[in-house]
Amino acid sequence: MTTDSSVAVLGAGAFGTALANVAARAGRHVTLFARDAAVVAEINGRRTNAARLPGAQIHERVTATASLAEAASAGMVLVVVPAQALRAVLAEAAPHIRPGTPLVVCAKGIERGTGSFLSDIVAAEVPAALPAMLSGPSFAADIDRGLPTAVTVAAADEAVARHIAATLGSPAFRLYHSTDLRGVEIGGATKNVLAIAAGIVAGRQLGASATAAITARGFAELTRFGTRFGAKPQTLMGLSGLGDLILSCSSLQSRNFALGHALGAGKGLELVAGKGALAEGALTAEILVEKAREAGIDMPIAEAVDAVLGGIIDVDQAIVQLMARPQRAE
Amino acid sequence: MTTDSSVAVLGAGAFGTALANVAARAGRHVTLFARDAAVVAEINGRRTNAARLPGAQIHERVTATASLAEAASAGMVLVVVPAQALRAVLAEAAPHIRPGTPLVVCAKGIERGTGSFLSDIVAAEVPAALPAMLSGPSFAADIDRGLPTAVTVAAADEAVARHIAATLGSPAFRLYHSTDLRGVEIGGATKNVLAIAAGIVAGRQLGASATAAITARGFAELTRFGTRFGAKPQTLMGLSGLGDLILSCSSLQSRNFALGHALGAGKGLELVAGKGALAEGALTAEILVEKAREAGIDMPIAEAVDAVLGGIIDVDQAIVQLMARPQRAE
Repeated sequence: MTTDSSVAVLGAGAFGTALANVAARAGRHVTLFARDAAVVAEINGRRTNAARLPGAQIHERVTATASLAEAASAGMVLVVVPAQALRAVLAEAAPHIRPGTPLVVCAKGIERGTGSFLSDIVAAEVPAALPAMLSGPSFAADIDRGLPTAVTVAAADEAVARHIAATLGSPAFRLYHSTDLRGVEIGGATKNVLAIAAGIVAGRQLGASATAAITARGFAELTRFGTRFGAKPQTLMGLSGLGDLILSCSSLQSRNFALGHALGAGKGLELVAGKGALAEGALTAEILVEKAREAGIDMPIAEAVDAVLGGIIDVDQAIVQLMARPQRAE
Repeated sequence: MTTDSSVAVLGAGAFGTALANVAARAGRHVTLFARDAAVVAEINGRRTNAARLPGAQIHERVTATASLAEAASAGMVLVVVPAQALRAVLAEAAPHIRPGTPLVVCAKGIERGTGSFLSDIVAAEVPAALPAMLSGPSFAADIDRGLPTAVTVAAADEAVARHIAATLGSPAFRLYHSTDLRGVEIGGATKNVLAIAAGIVAGRQLGASATAAITARGFAELTRFGTRFGAKPQTLMGLSGLGDLILSCSSLQSRNFALGHALGAGKGLELVAGKGALAEGALTAEILVEKAREAGIDMPIAEAVDAVLGGIIDVDQAIVQLMARPQRAE
């Protein structure tokens, strides 16, 4: 590990901006990379990022830059870009990342096309870095307002996970360390797809009881998938698995739940295309289902979501599939 | 088992009334016991139970009675009374219950004083009956409106559980059978206490992220307690455990969550005394914590709830306890 305590955040969306502020509040000097020069100017000048995190005041220890090279050379690098953009950003940043740098992925998904989990992308693109994942129930707005949030940070080496937790944590933003990288990334990737299903049920106004039932059954799918791919059950039951699933299945602040909600309320696929682009679950559903099928894992809820998004079944058919269960024993 | 397909429901509260309608819709002749003659008259005359289940139309196959003896002789008996009243009602009904009658407890709690789980009370008070539990995420209003709900019914003998599921089930009200009686009753008893904690966090407006985190950590406590007392992990992860926990931790329709919410919003214990009387978790918290301590099970969230309800700590101190965790590894 490097001894440099500077932190870079690659990606100035809502979550990236909130994490930059969190790191600054924890005493770090933070470089926040944004590709858009206007966003850089707004952050450095007005100390806001109004389009992405309305109401936030950017901490004085945060400096925005449009230079990926400058940001990537920090002592710790947080990558807060959409899962499907992770490989390209890492490839571009790789020459500037110093060996031994903790590289903390704060995205959730599985790469389309390759089926790669996100930590595998880090290992492939930046082999000299130390891959880590940060995930848990934490809306950017809640984090930024200083509301109490708790997330998990995982790295293969416990000392690395502890170091990241110590670097970013504060009383309001608590980080619990784990060595189960796979468990943390699978929880995040899977819950987004399941949140779309919960959104469909809620958007169809089927009642709180039905939404709770679909969330619990979704957790069973997440657990089956996760354990098959090497996640520890304890991790899946924790903040980054169940905790984040519960949050995403219960609030319109979740883009994935909101996407499902719009579909359930009767909006057509074409109308939600814009939302879909921002909902990571919509981009992960197909590859998740494909991996599950290959591995012989039963995931009827994820399959229903994928079929709706692919236009293969409509929402009414999906609801029949979501509410039914093949076997009558629990 | 008896071959008599008649069903009795003991207790005409919101849930009992909804279950009576459900059984009637499934084709059964239902006797609904209410101690209050005015309620009996209203149900049989106006076909409503306006004070307990507003808006509900009582099915023509439901007949109310104030005679416990008459109701208790049905082919299947559902007991829908508060957990702390279960023993007294069963003792009174016992002489009228025929041997081999499935006796389905639809209450959630642990008996104060004795620490008995509810199925043990059935075994003690009506030893010739077949004890069963019905539990899962299901608000009475959702059930009665015909919204899709799914619950678990458990009995030691799978054939009994299947028989109950077949007797009461319909496409809108799905029953999944289980032989894990202990798992189902522990999920129901524990989740009510944990829902008070989630309510406190939500009522204090600590954000959706914090409420989700406390719910997930509550599930870990529920699992530790349940597995120690013989519940199957699969049951605890199912509808009657996690499903019901999620529902109760997310909606003001839950009396337990509502009680916590009022406390979190700053109402004093004396102001919520009325709500506490209806929130089964408030009556179970102390005995749950006592049993956990005796068994050496770590349940900091349940302990915080018990301490608040007992006036030992205030809500602010409870929140510190709820948000903190003893160890930093997940």
